[in-house]
Amino acid sequence: MSSTAETAIDQPARDDIDLGAVLHALSDHTRLQIVAALDSRPGACPTGSFDVPVSKSTCTHHFRVLREAGVVSQRSEGTARLNTLRREDLDARFPGLLDAIPEGRVRSS
Amino acid sequence: MSSTAETAIDQPARDDIDLGAVLHALSDHTRLQIVAALDSRPGACPTGSFDVPVSKSTCTHHFRVLREAGVVSQRSEGTARLNTLRREDLDARFPGLLDAIPEGRVRSS
Repeated sequence: MSSTAETAIDQPARDDIDLGAVLHALSDHTRLQIVAALDSRPGACPTGSFDVPVSKSTCTHHFRVLREAGVVSQRSEGTARLNTLRREDLDARFPGLLDAIPEGRVRSS
Repeated sequence: MSSTAETAIDQPARDDIDLGAVLHALSDHTRLQIVAALDSRPGACPTGSFDVPVSKSTCTHHFRVLREAGVVSQRSEGTARLNTLRREDLDARFPGLLDAIPEGRVRSS
């Protein structure tokens, strides 16, 4: 629960990533937009850098769902939260899943 | 809303199947069990023929979620509801998605 500088935030280990939780996390259009954006950017991205049509607190909620499902990892750096897609872990656990989910196929809500 | 003998029940057309709705439908362990069972059986299966650890009314709910998302088609035949996985439609809309979701990877809840 600590949030000092350069702190990794709790997330499931690769083997504990649950398919149901991942599918739930990806079933929301905004979260899918975030995943697509993360997938297209190199390096870790601050939570505030995503162009999504929701409030800051809703965005924070979406990132928590993604992190707890094992879809993204987050770390605190000062006051910022930096996010990375756990593509390697997801590809190892559920081969082909991320590639079968093109965000362009999702209707805007 | 009719349910006379041999009646197809409302479901989205192929082009209207929404990825978010499909992922939500598949994010539940019981629904994933149903999908895996349908995928392994030829022909249409009565709703009551699935070995899932939920009440009849909960099972009915799960089938409705799957149908409304476009994952299964249902038709009434007398008093029975017969279910078919819409694999061809899903494979056309989201190639590789069903194959990337092996039910064996899902933890039992």
